[in-house]
Formats: sequence, structure tokens, C-alpha cells
Amino acid sequence: MTRLSLLGATALSLIAGVACAAPLALTNVTIIDATGRPPIEEGVIVMDKGRITAVGRKSEVAIPRGAKVLDKTGKYVIPGLMDANVHLFLNLDVDSLLRFRDRYADVIVEGAQLALKTGQTTVFDTWGPYPDLKAARERINSGKDVGARIFFAGNIIGFDGPASADFSEKFKGVLHKDTIDYLNKRWTQGTDRSLLWDTSDEVGKKVADYAKLDVDFLKYAANGHKDMAFAYMSQRAQDAVVKAGHDAGKTVQAHVHSVEGIESSLDAGVDILTHCDITPERIIPPALIQKMLQKGAYCSVLPTTRAHQDTLPKRAVHYQSQSMINIKNMMDAGVPLMLSTDAGITHPLPMAEPQLRVDSRTTLGEGHFAALQGLEEINVDPMKALQTATINVARGYKLDKDLGTLERGKYADMVVLDADPLAWAGNYRAINTVIKGGQVVDLEKLPTAPLISNQKIQPYQ
Amino acid sequence: MTRLSLLGATALSLIAGVACAAPLALTNVTIIDATGRPPIEEGVIVMDKGRITAVGRKSEVAIPRGAKVLDKTGKYVIPGLMDANVHLFLNLDVDSLLRFRDRYADVIVEGAQLALKTGQTTVFDTWGPYPDLKAARERINSGKDVGARIFFAGNIIGFDGPASADFSEKFKGVLHKDTIDYLNKRWTQGTDRSLLWDTSDEVGKKVADYAKLDVDFLKYAANGHKDMAFAYMSQRAQDAVVKAGHDAGKTVQAHVHSVEGIESSLDAGVDILTHCDITPERIIPPALIQKMLQKGAYCSVLPTTRAHQDTLPKRAVHYQSQSMINIKNMMDAGVPLMLSTDAGITHPLPMAEPQLRVDSRTTLGEGHFAALQGLEEINVDPMKALQTATINVARGYKLDKDLGTLERGKYADMVVLDADPLAWAGNYRAINTVIKGGQVVDLEKLPTAPLISNQKIQPYQ
Amino acid sequence: MTRLSLLGATALSLIAGVACAAPLALTNVTIIDATGRPPIEEGVIVMDKGRITAVGRKSEVAIPRGAKVLDKTGKYVIPGLMDANVHLFLNLDVDSLLRFRDRYADVIVEGAQLALKTGQTTVFDTWGPYPDLKAARERINSGKDVGARIFFAGNIIGFDGPASADFSEKFKGVLHKDTIDYLNKRWTQGTDRSLLWDTSDEVGKKVADYAKLDVDFLKYAANGHKDMAFAYMSQRAQDAVVKAGHDAGKTVQAHVHSVEGIESSLDAGVDILTHCDITPERIIPPALIQKMLQKGAYCSVLPTTRAHQDTLPKRAVHYQSQSMINIKNMMDAGVPLMLSTDAGITHPLPMAEPQLRVDSRTTLGEGHFAALQGLEEINVDPMKALQTATINVARGYKLDKDLGTLERGKYADMVVLDADPLAWAGNYRAINTVIKGGQVVDLEKLPTAPLISNQKIQPYQ
Amino acid sequence: MTRLSLLGATALSLIAGVACAAPLALTNVTIIDATGRPPIEEGVIVMDKGRITAVGRKSEVAIPRGAKVLDKTGKYVIPGLMDANVHLFLNLDVDSLLRFRDRYADVIVEGAQLALKTGQTTVFDTWGPYPDLKAARERINSGKDVGARIFFAGNIIGFDGPASADFSEKFKGVLHKDTIDYLNKRWTQGTDRSLLWDTSDEVGKKVADYAKLDVDFLKYAANGHKDMAFAYMSQRAQDAVVKAGHDAGKTVQAHVHSVEGIESSLDAGVDILTHCDITPERIIPPALIQKMLQKGAYCSVLPTTRAHQDTLPKRAVHYQSQSMINIKNMMDAGVPLMLSTDAGITHPLPMAEPQLRVDSRTTLGEGHFAALQGLEEINVDPMKALQTATINVARGYKLDKDLGTLERGKYADMVVLDADPLAWAGNYRAINTVIKGGQVVDLEKLPTAPLISNQKIQPYQ
Repeated sequence: MTRLSLLGATALSLIAGVACAAPLALTNVTIIDATGRPPIEEGVIVMDKGRITAVGRKSEVAIPRGAKVLDKTGKYVIPGLMDANVHLFLNLDVDSLLRFRDRYADVIVEGAQLALKTGQTTVFDTWGPYPDLKAARERINSGKDVGARIFFAGNIIGFDGPASADFSEKFKGVLHKDTIDYLNKRWTQGTDRSLLWDTSDEVGKKVADYAKLDVDFLKYAANGHKDMAFAYMSQRAQDAVVKAGHDAGKTVQAHVHSVEGIESSLDAGVDILTHCDITPERIIPPALIQKMLQKGAYCSVLPTTRAHQDTLPKRAVHYQSQSMINIKNMMDAGVPLMLSTDAGITHPLPMAEPQLRVDSRTTLGEGHFAALQGLEEINVDPMKALQTATINVARGYKLDKDLGTLERGKYADMVVLDADPLAWAGNYRAINTVIKGGQVVDLEKLPTAPLISNQKIQPYQ
Repeated sequence: MTRLSLLGATALSLIAGVACAAPLALTNVTIIDATGRPPIEEGVIVMDKGRITAVGRKSEVAIPRGAKVLDKTGKYVIPGLMDANVHLFLNLDVDSLLRFRDRYADVIVEGAQLALKTGQTTVFDTWGPYPDLKAARERINSGKDVGARIFFAGNIIGFDGPASADFSEKFKGVLHKDTIDYLNKRWTQGTDRSLLWDTSDEVGKKVADYAKLDVDFLKYAANGHKDMAFAYMSQRAQDAVVKAGHDAGKTVQAHVHSVEGIESSLDAGVDILTHCDITPERIIPPALIQKMLQKGAYCSVLPTTRAHQDTLPKRAVHYQSQSMINIKNMMDAGVPLMLSTDAGITHPLPMAEPQLRVDSRTTLGEGHFAALQGLEEINVDPMKALQTATINVARGYKLDKDLGTLERGKYADMVVLDADPLAWAGNYRAINTVIKGGQVVDLEKLPTAPLISNQKIQPYQ
Repeated sequence: MTRLSLLGATALSLIAGVACAAPLALTNVTIIDATGRPPIEEGVIVMDKGRITAVGRKSEVAIPRGAKVLDKTGKYVIPGLMDANVHLFLNLDVDSLLRFRDRYADVIVEGAQLALKTGQTTVFDTWGPYPDLKAARERINSGKDVGARIFFAGNIIGFDGPASADFSEKFKGVLHKDTIDYLNKRWTQGTDRSLLWDTSDEVGKKVADYAKLDVDFLKYAANGHKDMAFAYMSQRAQDAVVKAGHDAGKTVQAHVHSVEGIESSLDAGVDILTHCDITPERIIPPALIQKMLQKGAYCSVLPTTRAHQDTLPKRAVHYQSQSMINIKNMMDAGVPLMLSTDAGITHPLPMAEPQLRVDSRTTLGEGHFAALQGLEEINVDPMKALQTATINVARGYKLDKDLGTLERGKYADMVVLDADPLAWAGNYRAINTVIKGGQVVDLEKLPTAPLISNQKIQPYQ
Repeated sequence: MTRLSLLGATALSLIAGVACAAPLALTNVTIIDATGRPPIEEGVIVMDKGRITAVGRKSEVAIPRGAKVLDKTGKYVIPGLMDANVHLFLNLDVDSLLRFRDRYADVIVEGAQLALKTGQTTVFDTWGPYPDLKAARERINSGKDVGARIFFAGNIIGFDGPASADFSEKFKGVLHKDTIDYLNKRWTQGTDRSLLWDTSDEVGKKVADYAKLDVDFLKYAANGHKDMAFAYMSQRAQDAVVKAGHDAGKTVQAHVHSVEGIESSLDAGVDILTHCDITPERIIPPALIQKMLQKGAYCSVLPTTRAHQDTLPKRAVHYQSQSMINIKNMMDAGVPLMLSTDAGITHPLPMAEPQLRVDSRTTLGEGHFAALQGLEEINVDPMKALQTATINVARGYKLDKDLGTLERGKYADMVVLDADPLAWAGNYRAINTVIKGGQVVDLEKLPTAPLISNQKIQPYQ
């Protein structure tokens, strides 16, 4: 993980085009540090070289000489929000795939900017095209572009690409086979569904090879995607995937959608269960929740609001309301949950067609606000809710040395809010200032080169 | 198993309309008893009350007074052939499903008659509609109808019915939902794909309930059907299925299509691996073959001839030729193989349409002959080949007390051939006489009431 | 037409199993004879040998000695209702087509009985399977079965059969090609879409051949069916169809759906424009209505009620409301309209599936009542409305010598109502007695052998 | 047509970047002038200001002082070839439509360059996107780009656009509705299938409006496209289209595919019958050929070679071989035929997929050579064959004042061949030099900016 942290640090000098010569002091704010300790009123945070160098009451913290002072009297500061599961390139419609074929990395950077603009300083992309994710991460880490920190998995091991039975088969017979192959291989990078045919030994070797790529963590399919119930990988193969990932020093997560999917991936030793709340046909039984606890697995979840559920078709309502029951049960039992959205950039073209309308839950820049409100609606303790979007994510991904709280030594990623988010989750939307790596982000300029997010539909000429 | 054996015995009295008062002696034949011992020349088999009462050289066997003597000088006699995997109702085309909706049992009896006519005295139906299989089995066992002995599984546990994603989705939007539900439930009987959502405890309970039905053995889905690679059931669920089956005193087999499918079902403790030779994307590794041996599992296989392979499209050739490599490797290693065909009645309507043409491998009355020839083509020892179609099947299904060889005490099921099947597998086709339960079958009259097998296509009027 | 009339007469003797020896006198009724003359109060109708022998005020009509007297004091009598456009076999779902494959004639008779039971003594079937329509007509005309008089066209000349692009393509790939061919040929009888490739001379010859079949009248496609706008047949071909039909002594009607379809078929000289009110994209222009008048064409129409329109999806509402505007405009201009429904038997299976729900407009036994109410809703004069369902239909089909009014010499087809239909169209539903060919119909017994109309959905066993 | 001719002349100065100051004399060539007169050996053609100023034997023609002399001793010169029916933008695959969405005009210019490079100096585009065809024509006529002269129709009146039932419905549900509308409207320009609903008066008005656009000629649908048999427009509507076109001073052609389609459009007074040889289900009857002659209509045809037919599936062979019979019959009867190809740029992506492989007949740069060879195979007189590709096209489009022969006063468009095309049609491929508007074209440089024609399939990275 060290290399990633350093890369992240490397990027600090160029955030929002501000030179990083001088330390920065944020003063007179209520500090909600996400450690679980009570807020610090009239607090000060000092940051230098990208990291927090001091944090505490005004009376306890000395502001270094020459520091730039950012007075935010009466405001609230929280750690930069984190999203445990996004897809910065989620635009799988034919129009986008072809029109922007050479610009996927631009779309990904744009997504990272939408995230950053709305308070997410770090996002974990759990499925996307490797070359483009890598390029985008590099552009941001190098400081060439502003954006949320990106950590990514690349393919979901065991799944074929976007133009396959695992995602959408409507491309077949419409796009040229060559184009379909191009798209699928760009995503799968040698870890496609053929792994399901392999012996567990072979699976282990292929995953070890894949882990040599410059991906930050691994994700594999414990359940199917279109037909969620399938066990997909055998127990032995799952064991092999997790071992190969851990041998390579990466965290490993499993895409799960059934209780057996959860249990088998726990047995395999995964670090993270992805959207473990989405088990559409069965509530997670108490015994299985206890097993999660005992195994120490982190779960990313996809909370929704009642208002959102009201916009959905009947079957989807069931799907989401059951998710909330699972979340509540896991939360009560003490399973460490990580906030996530599965979000990407919602394209105006799909927005114009009801049958394709992407729901707000999966819209970058909106989904995480709604998710936090959703937790509030089921009476989750406000501090715990905040932790699902900060320190829990950092711990789940084993990045809590650098991320997740406002503590000395961590990256200086934080969000200044006009109102208290612990009083009402709606206040997470009251963003005043975003600081990433100790630098104030120029929110007005984001996204810097909008390609998808505000694309005008080309009128008929 | 006892009950089934007795039911089988009950049927003896009415086979081919011959009264069973007197014992029967088959004389002057070369006896190939399938035990592996050398043929007995000038042999005599005496049978009474459905069972073999004596077998040996003419000089060693006394023919009881009053016995009817059937002299077959120069002929060869083998045990009645057995098919480890058929589908007596395989007519999943819409035409057949609807036109014969009230006559599935008639179709099944017709299938059992086609089997018997071509030397198969016992067939194991591994997927079909429960009420109709049960009715057909009863009609035959009670002597009301002539036909091969039927043992059946009903549904493949974990699969939805014929009009589902596990078989064919083309029914959707064409047949009324009500009809689709009717068809699916007729097959699934409460063990459909929803089991994939259940915890292993729930799976165990549902399978225990299902096992209370009057089915002869159980079969479950270790792999998927349409997309063969899916693991389908978790290890834990597979364990639960096998335990529930064994607790109910039934043999349990797994539908497998991948090496991981084979290994996980072996771990679960299955008795039989169904079509374990069909692992289209990977040859079974030697280590896995050793595990089969060690676990004592029986494997049903689907051998084909080179001539048959030549009629297939490229991908299917690959599929079949790889199957033959698996068969050869397993045979050499000593895995007990059981001959099977996956066959049903080939309907003249599909035959008239090239794209629907059912291949001869899956045609009742033809498939098993071709399978035996296929084994000969890869140099399988002739006696071992015969055993795959007799005693191995009996042992795999734990019915070898009654079936599988020509030995005293077993059911008097046998086939008299005009030529030596050990000299050339083609001679299995030279059927002279079929005896089932000690009664000569009137082959000319089979099928007694043909509904599908010779149906004329109704001409336009 | 004589032959048909005679055939109709032949049937009289067996209606409802009543011997026809004695004349029948219906007495003390208000006679609404549909001639346009005012109702006759305290009227008497005498009928004998199937025809009306006297009609008038009680004081003017002598009741023959030995006549059976049917006193219906206070009731109203109207001519038997006629439907200019039905499809007695409209059950084009795969379930019905296959399950009742050998019983189409039974379904047609059942349809004719549903019509008769609800006051329709004569129906004109404008598309259906020739052999079955012929058989059903014969069964009714011969007196073997009770039912409405059937006159039929067989195929719509130029259209392919039910399993084709002209009706439904979903059969392709589901039913065997052989079955599809069987179905299509049963309907088309040599007058399929290939006529669109022929020269007009060839079209003329083929239609002349077709007209030699025992069909009562001809119908051809001036417009397409699925894509209603297509002109389908060239002017020259239309001319040839009409000439061939007239040369054979048959009336000829055109299936029309666009203003150009109407105008070109008028130019060709058709007797009847079928559903000329359904021109979904354009209101019929006044000049074209004048041309209808000048050419003397009859138009069958499909009126609907507002309540019915309210149940429809948006596009269909537009379709129907525009139809009502066309009807009103044609009625005001004096174009002779014929009531029709396009109705068949609504099957309980489609009823059970919302997406297949057949609307009430096209339901035999319901559609004509709704149509008459629909006319009332747009303020059509009650007598004129009645005439659209009686004498106009008879005149359009050139059968008014025998049918359409309550006048001496005509067939004794009539309906006794409990309330005055000229006061409220809802009273058409108040059927007291139906008399066909001078015989009282035993309404309770209809349908005599229900196959489709009350079929119970076979429960899962 | 005058305006167009002038525009064409305007372009002369920039052809192939050669200044046009001096006259040009082509010397010592065998001149095949396409008038039908015998070749002129040792001929000279002098051209100036874009037109031919003298043509004749060397002894009869004076070469102006200062003229540039192009000696081509031993070569053959023919008029620039013309193609009566191309589609310069034929790339209706989703990949091309979206990836090159802003560059259709570039593709069209590229097509015109491929045509010019292979000897076609003039092409008639009979269906394509209006704005882009107009832009491309302007770029070529203005001299900004080199390319064949383009004359175009825009939409086929009565047809919907490329993403519709008239062309391909596979776009539905794949592309956004907005994109589909964009594509369709770009082609149809207000003359879509809704015209089939209109009265003939309305059709006439809409076509008159459309004719005010800057299109060179009109084309309408007398028959359907996907289901070729439909008459589509009524006789009255066809009459209105032709009248509106002629009133606007444009030639009018009809898209025909059936004998009734041909006859009705002849009655309507069309100038040109498009691909009248493609009447797949019926040979054109002799009487109809006589009517073509009598009406003076020109027919564009699509000849193919036997070798080409051998590559086609059975049904297409029938289709093409019947086309050749029609061509032969029309040629023998004296109907003036115009060579055409329906060709566009064949994209390498479709080429890579067998099921999408565009046949060579419709490949720009190849189709016209094959067509000329096809005529030779059915023994068409070589001079007459040449005339189908030159003067006949010019006459059919009423452009023979300027185009079609090598005569004084006409545009100096010609092709110098290394071998005699009248000796063997294969020699049309032996292109030595192409001259358009009196300027030598630099063939090596064409296409100048290849976008589609040599696009490399982007490899997977």
C-alpha cells in the first residue's frame, strides 16, 4: 500500500494549481474528526506537505509562522468523504462507448472531479477499464489533473466485459465483433469468465499474474451478476483468488448477492464483502452476520432513502427496502460498514429516456448524500454514519494509516460544511470548502473539461 | 431400493402378454454374463418368477420339469442393457408440449418401449415431469404396459423448469404465463432455482421434503446448464443436498460440466457424477481423476462415434472429441464408468427442420448402440465396454443385487444376439430376443401405441 | 346469393331442437321493424317455414289456425342483429392454435352460439380458416348445430396467414416450420402475399380461382395490416380483384386503413370498405366522404364507448377517438354504415395476462352492445343506429331480400327485448327471446359445448 | 440543371492542384467517344476551360499554341464513367454512424474520391443525408476537394430514415431515442413514411416543399424496401410526386421492386426506374417492357458477374440471376439502361465479420468494373455496355448537354486506359489517367484523407 500512499502524496503540490510552499491553518471550526470522539469546538487544523501536522482546540495548537490562515468561524469540518464502491466509467450505453472511445480516461477524471466537488476526496473504483483507470489515476496523482484520489480494482475477476452476458448482451449483432472484443478485453485483462472453467490452481496463477498489474486491490465474483444467485466460483477457486491477492499484498473483496455467496467468500478469507446488503431474495440470517463479525470482514453497503424507493418499480422497492433491513441488522450487530454508491456519471442522454433513467443512487455527486440521509432515516447514530463514509472505508481497504480521520500524520483531506452534519444528514450538502492534500480545491472550476456530465444533446440541424 | 425391486417383480406376470406360470430355459447360447468372466459356451439360463434360478454350461444346469425351453443355438446372450441417463420425455418443443399436454405419461411409456425394443431393459431418467414419470413407471411395473424398467429423479435440484432460463427462454411471450408456470412446476416440484438463494440449512430441508416424493434417486445442479461454468450451488449447499438424499436412502448424483463442478460434488459425497466427460473447456486433470477413484464415485458418460462427430458443427466436435479424451483417461485410470445417452424420443417434426435436428446420440433406440461403438473406436476392452452398460450402472445406482449381470438370483433381464458383441460392437444391434423379468418380449408390437415416434406430419388439407 | 339463402333456410327445421311443423305468432309486442317506419304498438308477427308471413297491428293480422302463439305483452321486437365484421376464430395464441388444432370448427360454432345468444342472428366472418368456417357454416345451416347464420370470406386476399409478418411473427423459431406452414395455408388458400408480386392479370386469375371456393364474399388488402399505411396492392391489381369477385357473383370488400387506401378501393369499385373509420393518422377528408357517397359504397365501422376508450393506452385512445369522428362525419353525410366489432371469443387465458388482454370491443357477445352504446354517445339517431346493425348490413352484403328488417317474406330472425332500445341503447342487452328462422332459440343451452369461452385454466397438479 | 453544370465548371480550376491557365491536348489515343460511332485511331482531344474544344483524328485537329500536350500513344480514351445509383455514405453500422457522427461529409468526399480514382467522374447519389451530401458536393464543386461530380436526391420520398423499419430496426433499444431521431431526420428531411398517410394533395405539397431544397433530382418509393412487394404509394400519390418534381424542374425516379411497382410508376410519368431489374419474385413480362419503351423511361440496373453470384447464398443467387435475365430482356428490347452499383465505401470492420460482409457489387471502386464484366458475360455489345455507363446515364438524368460522350462542348471528363475496353471488359480496370474538367487527376493521392476506406482496426492495448 505504501507506493500508493506516496503516489498520492506526490500529487499534493499541484492541487488546484496552488503552490504548496506554505503550511495552511484552518481556524475557528468545529472539528468532527470521525474518530468517534466528541467534536472539538473552536478548533484548528494545521497542515503541511500534504499532511495534517496538528489538530486540536485553538488554545492547544500553535499556528506555524508563515502559514496561510483560513478562518472558517462557525463552520464544521469533517474528514474528506470516501466512497467504497464507484464506477467512474459507468457509461455503458453504445452512444458513449463509441463516441468517447478514445477518451475513457477523460471521462474517469471527470468523474473523479464530480466526486471531489461534492466532498469525496477518495473513491474506490471496483470495476472499469484498466488502461484508462490507470491513466486517470496517474493524471490525478501527478497533479496534472485535479480530482478525488482514485484506487481501483480493474476487472471483477470471473466476469466477462461490458459487452457480455455478465453485463449487457444487447451489443451482440449491433456492434462489430471486433469492437465487442476490444471493449471486453479492455475491461477483463485476462481474468474473464474462462476462470470459471479452470482448476483452482490455474485460477490462482492467473490471479497472481493479474495482481502484477498496477491495480490497487482485487475484486472477484462470488455470485453472478445478471442472475445473482449463481455461486459462480467454487469454494476452492475463491480460496485461490484470495490467497493470490493477499500474497501480492492487495486487499481482496467479493461481489456477493446471496447468503451462500457471503458465507463462501467469508470462508475464503476476503477483506471486504461488496454490496453485501443486496441479497434480494433472502434477509441475511443472524448466524451469518455473526460470522461476518467473527471473520472481521468489512461490508460495503448501498443505503437509499424512502423518497428514492418511492420512485422505483415494485420489485426494485423490495430489493432496496430489504437492503435497508440488512444494513440495520448488520449495523446493530456491529459489522463495520462502508458507505458506497456504485455511482458513475449520469449521462444526459440516458436521462432523457425514461426506460434508461439512471437512478440518483448511482449518480456521482448525489448518491453519497442520499446514502447518508438513508442511514439517518433508519436511525443510525450520526457519528457512526459519518464513520461509514470515512474511517471505516479507510480501515476496510487498510489505508487508515493515511486516510479516514482528522488526526495528525494523516493526509490533509477534509470538507468544511456550513452546518452541522451530525444534526441533520442533509447538511452534508452544505459544502463550503474542500481541502485535499492540504490544498484548497477550486470547486467552481470542476469539472475542468466536462465531456459527459453536462453534454448538450446535439440538436438536429 | 427394495420397494422398487419388488414393484419391478410385480410386473413380470404380464410382460408381452405371456402368462408366467412355467419356468423358462434359454438353451445352447454363449453366455456373456458381464461379470468379467469368460463367456460360457453352450450355456443354459433357467429363470422362474422373474429371476434367474440357474446359469451355466449345459452340462451343469438342470432344466426343471415343465419348463418352457427356448433353444437359441449359436446365439449370444448378455444382460439386459442399462442406460444411466435418459430423458423419456425430451420433447420440449412447443408443438409437443401443448399438443400432448395431457399425454406426457403416454410419451414416457412409448420411450420406455423404444428402449426395451432395442435391448435396454432398464433406464434411469434423470430429468422429467414427476407426475408423468411416476404414472408411467407404475403402468410398467404393474404390468399394465410393457417397457423398460424406469427409475427416475424428477427435477434436477436447483434448476428451473423447461420454460426457464435453465432450458429454453423462447417460450416467454409466446405461451401464456399460466401455461409456462404449469410446465415449470410440473418439472420442478418445489426444487427450482430459488434454492440457490437459500442458506444451506434451508436447502437441506427442502431437499428432504422433495425426497419424500416417490422418486428413485436424486440429482442436483453442481454446475449450470446453459452457461456450464457456473458453480451454481455453494459447497455448503451441495453438502446439504447430498446429506438429505442419503438420509432418505437415495443415491445422489450431480450434474457437472466443469472441473470445479466435479471436485466440489466429490467433496459433497455424491454417488454419481452425471456426464462428467462433458467439461467442454478443460480436460479433467489427472489429479482430479485420482480423486474420483479415491472417493469411489461412478461417472455416467456420453461416448460418441467419429462418424457422429463428423456431422457436427465445429464447436460441438471439440466438445465431443474432448469428451472421448476424458472417457479414455478415466477408463485407463479405473474410474467406473456408466454408459448413458441423454436420449429421448426424436420427434419427426424436429427431424424435418435442420436447425432443430436432434442428433442421433440423444435418440432413444439408437444412442446406446452408437455409444458402445464409440467406446470400441477408442480401443476400450469389449468386456469393459459391456460392463459400462450393465453391471457398472447397477452398481452406481446400488441396484446390483438385482440387476447388471447374468447371475443366479438376479432379475431375468437379458438380450439374445445373433452375433458376438465382444467381436464387434456393431453386433449389439443384432437383437434376436429380449427377455425382461423372465418373459420374452414381443418386440414387433413395440411401441404399442405410438404417439410421437412415428407420428406422421399432418398434411395440409 | 340464392344458394346461401337456401342453405340458411335448410337449417330452420332444427333450431333449438324444436320441430317446425306449426307456424308461430309473436303477439302483443312493439315492433321496431328497422325500415325506418315508426314502431308498431300491440303488433303481431306471424312466421312459418322460417320466414315472416305477416306483420302488423294486432287488428290487421290474422293468426293462422294451429299456430303456436308466443305472447310477449309489453316487450319490444327488433330484427335479429347483424355484425358486418367478426372473426369467429380469433384465438391466435399458440396455446389455442395447438391445443385445439383439430377443433377450429368447434370453436367457430361456439362463437356463432355466443353471437346468437346475445341477439346476433347473422354474422359476417371476414378472416378465418376456410375449411373450418365452411364446416361450421354447414353444421349450422344443416341444423346439426344451433348458431348465428355465418357468411364468410376466408382469407384477406394479399395477406399471409396468422403466423406471418401480416399478423404475428412471434411464432417463428418457436413452432416447427411445418406447423407454421400448416397454419398459414389453412388461412390463405392460395391468396397470400405472393399476389403482391403478380401482374394484375395474374392477380385476377388467382382471385377468380379462389372465388370458386365455397366462400360467401371476398375481402382483399388495400392497405397493410401491421404497418397500416402501405398501399399494398396497386390500383391495377385492386381493379382485377374486384372484377374477379363481381364476375363470380360475390360482393367484394377492401381492408382499408388510410385515406389513399379508401380512395383507391373506391376507384376499384368495392361494395364495402372494411373498418373505414380506422384511419389512425388522418381524419377522412370531406371530399373523400362525398366520393364514398357517390360510389355507393357501404362502410363497416367499429364504434366504441368513452368508457372503453378510457381503459386504453394513449395511442389507442387517439386511434379510437379519431374513429368516432370519422363515424360521425360519415353518418352526417349519409354514408351507409354497417355495425361491426372485429370480435371473436375472448379466451380466459389471454384474459389472465394483462399484456394480452383482449379488449371488450373485440369480444363476441359484448362488442356489439358497446358499439351501439358508442353510437348513442355521439348522438346518432336511435333508429339509424339500429339500422347500422340490421338493414344496412343486409344491403351492404346484398342480402336484403332475406335479411335486415321485420317485413313479410324475410327470414324470421328477431330479438324480443324487455325494454325499448330506441329509448336507451343499453336496452339492447335486455334480451328476452331470440328467434332465428321462425324458431325460438333455447338461450340457456348456449354455448352447447363450450370449449374456449368458459375454459377453466387447468390447475397445476 | 444549368446551375449544377456551372457549379461543376467552377470546380475545374483546382482539380488535383493543377492550374488551368493553358489548354490541354491528349494525343495519339484511340478515342472511343461513346456516341456509338467507331473508335477514332490516332486521335486528339483538345480541352480548355473545362470543356472539350476539339476532338478527331490527329490530321483533323489543330493543337492550340501554348497547349500542354499529353501524349498517350497506344492508349484508349473513353468518357468519364458515370454511376446512376450510389450511396456515398452507406456506412449504416452503429460503429460508423457514431464514431464519425460529425464527419459524414468527409466520408462522402472520400467516397467520391474512390469513385474518381477508379474512373467514375460522375456519380448519382440516390439516398443519403442531405446536409452532408450538400456540403460534400460544394467542397468538390468549389474545388476545395477533388472527387467525382456528385448529383444527389437526399431522401427516398416515403421512406423513414436509416434507423427505421425501412432500413434497420436493430438500432431500437440500443441507441438513445434522441440519437435515432437525429439520424432519421438527417436523412428524411420531412419526406418520411408519414407521406403514406397523406392524401395525394398533401403529398404533392410536401414534395414541392422538399424540391425547394438544394437537391439535384427526386426519388420516391413506389415499392417498399424491406418487404419489396408493397405498393407503398397509391397511384394518385405517385402522380402527385412526379408532378411536383417536374414542376420544380427535377428529374424524378422511382424505387421499384415489383412489376406492379414498375407499371404504376410508369403511369405516374417517372423519368427513371431505379434498379428495375431487381424484381425478385417475377421476371418482368414482355408487355411491361414494351410499356417502358413506349413511356421513354430510363432504367438503372445492377448487373453482376457469375463469379460474384457464386459467392452468394442460394436466395441471393436467384435474386441476382433473375436480375440478369431482366437486364438481357430489356437490353434486347431496346430499353435504355443505365449502369449502377448501389455502392458505398466498404468498411474494413464489416469486412472482418462474415455475416456483415458487404458484397463487392456494392463496393465503390470495384462494383462498376464488375458490373461491366457482368454485361459482357451475357453478351451485351461492348459499345452498348459502355453507353450504359456514360451517355445513357447522362440522358436519363437529362444532363447529356454536358456529360456522357467525348464530343466538342461537353465537359472534358475522360479516362485513359492501357488496353481496349471494347475487346475485354476487364480492361476498364487498366486505368492510366483520369481527366476531370480538363484537368489530370493525381490518382496516387486519392483518397486524400482516408477515414473509412483504409481504417485500421484499432488493436487492443
